[in-house]
This record gives sequence, C-alpha cells and structure tokens, in this order.
Amino acid sequence: MIGIIMGSISDWDTMKHACDLLDQLEISYEKEVISAHRTPDDMFAYAESARDRGLKVIIAGAGGAAHLPGMIASKTTLPVIGVPVQSKLDGIDSLLSIVQMPSGVPVATVAIGKAGAQNAGLLSAQILGTWDKDVAQKLERYKRELTEKVGEMREQLATK
Amino acid sequence: MIGIIMGSISDWDTMKHACDLLDQLEISYEKEVISAHRTPDDMFAYAESARDRGLKVIIAGAGGAAHLPGMIASKTTLPVIGVPVQSKLDGIDSLLSIVQMPSGVPVATVAIGKAGAQNAGLLSAQILGTWDKDVAQKLERYKRELTEKVGEMREQLATK
Amino acid sequence: MIGIIMGSISDWDTMKHACDLLDQLEISYEKEVISAHRTPDDMFAYAESARDRGLKVIIAGAGGAAHLPGMIASKTTLPVIGVPVQSKLDGIDSLLSIVQMPSGVPVATVAIGKAGAQNAGLLSAQILGTWDKDVAQKLERYKRELTEKVGEMREQLATK
Amino acid sequence: MIGIIMGSISDWDTMKHACDLLDQLEISYEKEVISAHRTPDDMFAYAESARDRGLKVIIAGAGGAAHLPGMIASKTTLPVIGVPVQSKLDGIDSLLSIVQMPSGVPVATVAIGKAGAQNAGLLSAQILGTWDKDVAQKLERYKRELTEKVGEMREQLATK
Amino acid sequence: MIGIIMGSISDWDTMKHACDLLDQLEISYEKEVISAHRTPDDMFAYAESARDRGLKVIIAGAGGAAHLPGMIASKTTLPVIGVPVQSKLDGIDSLLSIVQMPSGVPVATVAIGKAGAQNAGLLSAQILGTWDKDVAQKLERYKRELTEKVGEMREQLATK
Amino acid sequence: MIGIIMGSISDWDTMKHACDLLDQLEISYEKEVISAHRTPDDMFAYAESARDRGLKVIIAGAGGAAHLPGMIASKTTLPVIGVPVQSKLDGIDSLLSIVQMPSGVPVATVAIGKAGAQNAGLLSAQILGTWDKDVAQKLERYKRELTEKVGEMREQLATK
Amino acid sequence: MIGIIMGSISDWDTMKHACDLLDQLEISYEKEVISAHRTPDDMFAYAESARDRGLKVIIAGAGGAAHLPGMIASKTTLPVIGVPVQSKLDGIDSLLSIVQMPSGVPVATVAIGKAGAQNAGLLSAQILGTWDKDVAQKLERYKRELTEKVGEMREQLATK
Amino acid sequence: MIGIIMGSISDWDTMKHACDLLDQLEISYEKEVISAHRTPDDMFAYAESARDRGLKVIIAGAGGAAHLPGMIASKTTLPVIGVPVQSKLDGIDSLLSIVQMPSGVPVATVAIGKAGAQNAGLLSAQILGTWDKDVAQKLERYKRELTEKVGEMREQLATK
Repeated sequence: MIGIIMGSISDWDTMKHACDLLDQLEISYEKEVISAHRTPDDMFAYAESARDRGLKVIIAGAGGAAHLPGMIASKTTLPVIGVPVQSKLDGIDSLLSIVQMPSGVPVATVAIGKAGAQNAGLLSAQILGTWDKDVAQKLERYKRELTEKVGEMREQLATK
Repeated sequence: MIGIIMGSISDWDTMKHACDLLDQLEISYEKEVISAHRTPDDMFAYAESARDRGLKVIIAGAGGAAHLPGMIASKTTLPVIGVPVQSKLDGIDSLLSIVQMPSGVPVATVAIGKAGAQNAGLLSAQILGTWDKDVAQKLERYKRELTEKVGEMREQLATK
Repeated sequence: MIGIIMGSISDWDTMKHACDLLDQLEISYEKEVISAHRTPDDMFAYAESARDRGLKVIIAGAGGAAHLPGMIASKTTLPVIGVPVQSKLDGIDSLLSIVQMPSGVPVATVAIGKAGAQNAGLLSAQILGTWDKDVAQKLERYKRELTEKVGEMREQLATK
Repeated sequence: MIGIIMGSISDWDTMKHACDLLDQLEISYEKEVISAHRTPDDMFAYAESARDRGLKVIIAGAGGAAHLPGMIASKTTLPVIGVPVQSKLDGIDSLLSIVQMPSGVPVATVAIGKAGAQNAGLLSAQILGTWDKDVAQKLERYKRELTEKVGEMREQLATK
Repeated sequence: MIGIIMGSISDWDTMKHACDLLDQLEISYEKEVISAHRTPDDMFAYAESARDRGLKVIIAGAGGAAHLPGMIASKTTLPVIGVPVQSKLDGIDSLLSIVQMPSGVPVATVAIGKAGAQNAGLLSAQILGTWDKDVAQKLERYKRELTEKVGEMREQLATK
Repeated sequence: MIGIIMGSISDWDTMKHACDLLDQLEISYEKEVISAHRTPDDMFAYAESARDRGLKVIIAGAGGAAHLPGMIASKTTLPVIGVPVQSKLDGIDSLLSIVQMPSGVPVATVAIGKAGAQNAGLLSAQILGTWDKDVAQKLERYKRELTEKVGEMREQLATK
Repeated sequence: MIGIIMGSISDWDTMKHACDLLDQLEISYEKEVISAHRTPDDMFAYAESARDRGLKVIIAGAGGAAHLPGMIASKTTLPVIGVPVQSKLDGIDSLLSIVQMPSGVPVATVAIGKAGAQNAGLLSAQILGTWDKDVAQKLERYKRELTEKVGEMREQLATK
Repeated sequence: MIGIIMGSISDWDTMKHACDLLDQLEISYEKEVISAHRTPDDMFAYAESARDRGLKVIIAGAGGAAHLPGMIASKTTLPVIGVPVQSKLDGIDSLLSIVQMPSGVPVATVAIGKAGAQNAGLLSAQILGTWDKDVAQKLERYKRELTEKVGEMREQLATK
C-alpha cells in the first residue's frame, strides 16, 4: 500500500499522475490532503502511524516552500518520495525546498510537475519490486511498453 | 522575551549576530537548538508553548531545505522571523525554502547570513517597539548610531 | 492602524490581498500609492510621520528594482513588511531587492505575489497580536479556519 | 546488497559518505567506478545484471552533465538513487541533470554533495527496511541517535 | 549524410528546423526518434554504427535531463551536436545537461529551442564544408542571404 | 567634475578602480560614503545639490539590496551610473537591484565588481567627451592603449 | 542626435519605446537595424562613423547572446546604452551578455524589455542634458510629470 | 590546422588544455590573443582570412560578456567552437553569452572552464576526423585510453 498526500487540493492536477500510474500497475494506494502548514498535527499523526497502517512508501507533493515531504520524513523511517509541484518560480523553489535535506533525513526527489508525479508512482512500485516479484514483473512489462511507444513515435515521424 | 532557535549548532556562527544585537539593546532572549528534521516533536512543543511562556517573537535560523521557520509558524500565531543560513548554494535554497510560504502562514524573512541574523534581532526589537516605548527609544538611538558610523567611514575614506 | 503602500497602481492586484486579509480580521488600515522613484519626498514624509500618525506596521509592495520597502525602513523604526510583486523575471529581482538589506535596516520579507501580500496582512496582525489580546484571539480563530478548509479539500479529493 | 557507483575516482570524497552510512548500519554494499561517458558498455552491463546479482538498490553519484544515474535507471527496474556531486556551478547542473528525468524512468534524487551521499545510503536502507525488519529496527535506532545528537548540541550552545 | 535524432516525437516541433535548414542547403540527412531513457540499446546501436553507415555528424535534440547527445557522444568519435529543447524550466536544465560534459567526451551545444535547432543544421553543414567545397560555397551564399534579409528589415523599419 | 559615492567603506576596494581610471585620464572627481539606508537624508541632499555644485555625472556603487544608485537617480536628472558590488550571491542581487529600474528613472548599470567600477569611470568620461573635445581625445588615446596592451599579451603568449 | 539601433526588426516592439520617449522630449534621433551577427561590417562602419556624423549617444537593443551593444562600444568612444530585449530565458541571457563587459569597454545597461528601452531614451537625454540646458529643463519637466502621474494613481486607488 | 584564440592572456590557464589535447593527438594548431573588444579589427581580419590561411576550425575562449566566439562566427563559415571561461558568476554569463546565438550564426559551445577547453580541442579533432582517417584512428585510440583510465581508477577505489 502506497500513501499519496498533497499540500492542497490545487496539487491534484499534478498528483493524479502518480495515482494513474499506480492504477495502471494495479498497485493499491490511498490519497489525502495533508498540509504541512495548515494541518501540522495531522501531518505528524499520518507519518507516525504510516508503517503500522501498512504503508510501504509515502509520496508527498507540494509547491513553493514545500515542507511536506521533508517533515513527513522527519517522523517516519519509511522511504518518502517528494514531488515538486510547479510554482510561480517554475518550481525551482519547490525543488530546492524538497531536495536539499540535511544529513539523516532523506527525501527521494523526482522531477518538477506531472512527469515527476508519474515517476513518483513508478519509483514507489520499484521499491515494492525489490521484494515483490509480481510487481517486479509488472515493471519489466511497463519498461517494454515504454520502448514500444517509441516505435509508434517513429511511425509518426516517418510521415513528417 | 525573544526566542532564538537554530537547526544545528553549526548555525551558531550566523545566529550569534542576532543575540549580539539584542544584548546591545538590552533586550532579553533565550536561545536553543531545535531541529525541524531531527527533533520535530520538540519543535512543535516549543512553538505551542511559546506564547504562554511569554515569548513575543521567535527568530529561527536554518539552511538548505530550511523548514524550521515555516514549521514553527504553522504552530503559533506569534510573529516568526526566518534567517536563511548560508549553504553550498550560497543560501539561495535556504532563502526560497523560508520565504515562499503559502497563504495563511507567513514567515518574516531577512537577508542571507550574518547581516540577516543581525537584522532579525533588530526586527524583533522593532516589533516590541510597537508598544514598548523604552524599546522604541533604544531603536531611535541605534538608528542615530548607524548614521554616525557613516561619519567615521567618511573620515577613513578621506585618507585614501 | 496598518499602513499599506505600493509603488504603482499596477501593484494593486497583488496588494489588495493584504487589504482583504485585514478587512477579514477587522483591523483598520490606510492604503496609498507611494513611489520610491517618482515620489521620493512623499516616501520620506510618509515614513517619518508614520509612528506619530499612529501606524504600528507598514506594508510596502513593489516590483523589479523594488526599493520602496527598504527606503521606508531607512526612515522609520517601525517594522516594515516587504511584498515582492511579480515582474518579468518572475519576481526574483523584486525578492532579492527587498530581502537582501544590509545590517541595521531590516525588511520583513514575504513570498512573491498574491500569497505574499495576504501573508503581509497576516504578519502585521501577528505583530499587533503581540500586545493586543483581541487580535491574538482573531488570529487563533483564523488558524483554526485554515485547518477547517483542509477538511473541505479532503471532501473534494474524495470525489476524484 | 546495495550497489554504489560513481563516475570518477574524484567523486569518492563525496560518495564515501554513502559507504560510511551503510557501514554504520552494517548493511553490505559493493562500490565501483562506472563512467557513463567513458565506460558506457560497462554501465549497461552493470545495470542489466544488477537484479540478478542480488542488488536491491543502486546509488549513483555524478557531477556536471551527470548522466550516470539516469542511464542506469534506463536499463534496470531497480530503484536508482542519484547523488549530485558538487561542480563548478555549485552542483546546480548536476542536480538538474539528475532530477529532471522524463516520465517512465525515475531517479530518486538527494541533496547536492556530502549530505546527499549520506542520505543516499540512508534511503537505500529505508528501501530495504520496507521488508527487512532488522533494517527497519536499525533505522529506528539511527533516528533516535539523530535526536540525541541535538541534545549534545544544546549542551554546546549553553556554553556560548 | 547527417543523422538527426530526437528523444521524443514532441521534440519534432523544435528539431524540424534543423531538417528545414538542411533541405534548404540540399544536404541529405536521416531523422529518427531515439530515446536515451526508453530505447537505450537502440541509442548505442545507432551511435556505434553511425560512422560505418556513412554519417559525418549526428545532431541530437532532447529536453529536461537531456542525456541523448552526451550518451551518443560516449559511443562514437563523430562530432555530436546537442540541441537543448525548451522545458518547464525554460530549457536551462536541458542546456546544462547537454553542455556540461566531462573531459574526453565533447558535445557541440547550440542555443535553446528553434534557433538552436536551425543552427545545429548549419553547424553540421559547416563541418561538411571543411572538406566539401560545394557545401562551403552554399554556406557563403547562405551568409550573404542573411545579410540581405537585414536589408529587408531596414525597409520595414523605415515605414514605422 | 564627477561624483563618486559608495554605500560603505567596504565598497572602496571596488570603487577605487573608478577613481584610478579618472586619475589616469586626469579628470577631476570627488568621492564620498553615502549610505542609502543609514544616511538617507544625506543621500537626498547630495542628489538634489549635485547639478548646482557642478557635477556632470554621479557614479554610485552598492551591494546586496543596492538602492543607492536608483534612489540618487530618483532625485536628479543627471546621468547616474550604478556599480554592482560583489556580494554573497556573487553580486547577482546587487546587479538586479540596480539595473531593473522602472520607466522614468534610468540607472546606467555596468558589470559586477572591479571591471564595472573601472568602466563606470570610463563611461563618465565618455559622457563628458560628448561635448569636451579634450576628454574625447584622451578617450581615443586610451582606446589605442587598450589595443597596444593586447600586443604585449601576444608576446607573452608566444613564450608559452 | 541619438542613434538607435537594434539587432532585428523583431526588437522594434521593445525599441520603439526609446523612440517614443525621445519624440516626447523632442530630441532628434535616427533608427536602423544593424545586426552584429548578420551585418558585422555595417556594424563597424556605423560605430566608426558615428561621432563624425554628429551622434552623441548610441542606443543598441539586442536579445539572447546580445553582442550588438558591446561590439559597437568596441569601435567608438561615444557612450553606448544597451537594452536587453526579452528572450526565451526571460532576458537574463540578454542582460548578462550586455552588462558583463570587460575593463576598458563599458556599456551603460538598462532594465530588460520595454521599461529599459524607455529608460535608454531618457538616459541618452540625460547625457545631452549635461551640457544642453534646454534638454536639462525638459528633463526637469518630465520628472515633475512622473510625480504628477502618481497623483492620478492615488485618485484611482481611492476608488478601490 | 586549428586556430586557437582567446580574449586575454588571463584565459591561457584555461585554453592551454585545448593546446595540450591537440599536442597529444599530434594535430597542428596556432594560438593567438584576439580580443573582441580591444582588437575588433584584428578579430575581423583573423576570421576573414582563416579559411584561406588553411584553418579548418577555430576555437575561441572568452569570459563574462564573451563576444569573441560569436563575432568570429559572424565573419567566417568555418565551424567555430566557443569555450566559456570561468568568471565571477561561475561562468554562467560566459556560457549564455556564447551559446544563445541567433539563427544563422552557430557557435559550437562546450563546457565551462578547463574540461570545456580540452573538449574543444577534441571536438576540433573530431571535425577533422570526418574526412581525415588518420585523425579518426587517433580518436579511436584516445577513446580506448579514456576507458583504460577508468580501469586505473577502479584499482585506486579498491584500496579505499
């Protein structure tokens, strides 16, 4: 089970790509709005109970002074994946706020925006796949499909 | 009473300039190491009890993915001043992580590094000075001294 | 009484969010266009008379080479809050021009754009709240409402 | 078993912090120099055989146009952690080259430099800890020690 | 014969300007979608066979963590021209990922976006023109036409 | 007569290069410390009296939130040259604070640091040279000397 | 007489604001397209003949790798004003290419885009105004009008 | 024959790495100081005569507002390689001034600093190698040596 959280409902347009990816791989997940700055107690409760509730990985998306992934990571020993949501500064503030964590509290940061959210889903599956063979096989299949899509692109290019 | 906190003892070289300024103005303060990522519970306890313990302003210094000021601000309605401590990216990551807070949870951000720490002390005094006439007078005196120091600089320049 | 000033009428779209916030908290304020570069004498007159006219905090918004907050701060010992208005460089020039003040003259800088303006209003209320219990209570209520809004977001997300 | 690779022997000063962390947690790892640009075939061979050789996670450090983590990720479905090694541009080029991966091929990116390398080790342990209870317990202990070190810092600060 | 490759069909809008330039100079080329991250084996096969297949120069366009040009360069001794395709960070990530190559593996990098793609075509022709007099003459003619187009601009400006 | 001002005595190491250049061209100048933030009234008095005191150009150097050149420009119609003094952010904050002036109040900005200061001196001479033939001739001579210095560099290179 | 040149007809939308300003002040100027990269010989001829043809100041606008202002400055001792035209990188490349000139060859750089172009016109008038009393008076009037426009803004704001 | 030019003798520390590489491959070259801003006429003469003097490729190194490579490219149809020399802004200004060339006038840009200079030498050899089989063979040998050096690094790492 993967936990997907976001700082605001406005992050959904980005974070749904993480959900779509997990749907596609048929991996179960829960999703919730948890705001570091507006619901700090819920955030701590979420992080503290995560392992016991059976979560394996937490994906957290946030923008601007994006504190959610790092603060979740401060309260759990589960792997936390941070998705920088695009902001007025093109997401460079979100990226730096998420990735530049101090020694002892890592956040696994992915690309800014939609591609990052999708990859967060995929990375969480890769983590499951380190011990779940079924997931590992799905990932191999997904990788082959990626390659096949390039085949389709080549046909498109040939017509230009 | 002003509360001065920092994410690590390594921030002391920067944050002592806030203390020095308050010493100079004879304003009382307490100082402590509170790490957002390594002591999250202490951080929340500090913020929650701050007003009742008589603090008027909290100054928080941190570097890199600098979450301390913003998370303190999420747990108190006292004014929080954030000092971006210089990092490997010259402190631009610290600055953006502190200043780009979302609606509803402000952090009063000052300049990167030593000058910022000193100004954090001064800003906290200015806040006290909105109702404490004694402090307000000290601030007027401090401002005059700033001007006088330029006079000394002029004498120095005249010798060049 | 809070003073809200801006460098140009074009900054109103940003700065009105400071006014809205103070309206919401029923805190009185005045608003004016004061341009550092086009009306420098008015700017100095405004800053010099501010404390005597009963202002407690000054909020100044400006963009590009945003000198208004810092120059106001050079002429008063009241706390000055600077709002970086978005510019052609996404507001990074406004932010650096406002926040990187030298020792002795702090500007309490908030986020770029609308969120920053709203937070400037809130921060000015937090400063009043250090001695005005009524304002302090309003701020507690406001914080609770922030949390409650996340509850609404959760209902929205549940439908996705 | 964790695989730690780096683009050049000059990255060792950074990457040894990943090794030190794993030594501290008594987690076994192998380390090797694999250069994306000078030994591309070795790189592919390494990535292709990684899962079968029993690796669970690959940590790859590189600087500048840092292609190693992303190219390893293109050839395996194991989780790949990328460490941006500091460069002449302070590591901002390394960071962007590693984190901005396209949809379908994630790299779990950590902070620039030494702290990032240490956190890469820790993140790899967190990934093992999703199914290895022994590692999970070590991580809990490590987290407590982090907190305790803040206690030592407080004693230090008290003497200032 | 020039080889033009791109990481995705979505790069065609940029890369077609390289093709158009070569069409205009009547220089033959082939074009293909080759993704560093989704078709890494095809990428290596393309680079390894390039010289034997008679290619003289390879133009590679990619965006974000743009690894295609650098990885092609790792597998051939032909000159490789890299075109940074515009991304969410305005292409600054694409530029740095392409240009900051380590000693021993150069990529000839051109401007971000359309102008860069056009110039990549021109640069490949300049390389042919170091030994092909016919191409060299075409380039002289092209340069004269550039100058003449400024004449047309002057007529336009005169009417303003 | 050229006026050279700087925000702090610490700017002298940079600004002396403007003085040296004017010494070399035998153009008279005055120099003074004028701080926008610590001596705002002196700054306005300086700018207001500048033309009547016979100044033709004002050169102003400042670092960080560098308001001095722009504020001088707001109070005079003389040409104002701004020199961005290097800061902790490599001077990029100084540069943006000086150059990004709004419509109606230009500052003639030169390069960051020493080269900029020297060029500020030269630019002020070029302005005098628009009507002073003697200065114009000195500038022609200076330009020839620049060219000759390249001759010396060539001799040096020949020995390498 | 002011010379206004631009690298391409596409720069006209920006550079016309320089012309408009000079029209408003009734200062005569000529305008031309001169491309550093497409008409380098015309560029040198323009710069070399400028003083003899009676030009007092040259305003040059260019974008991207904006070489026009600096190269004009290399061939004349007249003051050269550089206008960074907005580019795909928001004009930051144009700005740095124009302002970071080496010792000996200054370019008076103004803000990016329209405001910069307008200010280039004004700065050229300020240079004339160092010896032309008529122009100096027009500049005083212009400055008063700037102030008056703020009065209009205040009326607008009062209605909000 | 390769032409290597640099804007100042101070660029030699960087540009000698281009010379060393060509020495190593036994490819003949000439080297000269040519300053875009101090010897513009020499620059044009150099570029105009380059092809007739038998040059095949021109390598140009420059820092700051680095106009040399682009202006050389405006006057020749030979391939021009630009090396961004490190500056006070870490070379980011040099890089953007060189790479962001407009349509019609490409500069083949390499990495900032020493690695870039070395790669400029190598790229010039790759261009010769498109028709000179002897050079092409030397490049194959050089590439194998690169790979072998990684072998040495591995032995070093094994001792850590």
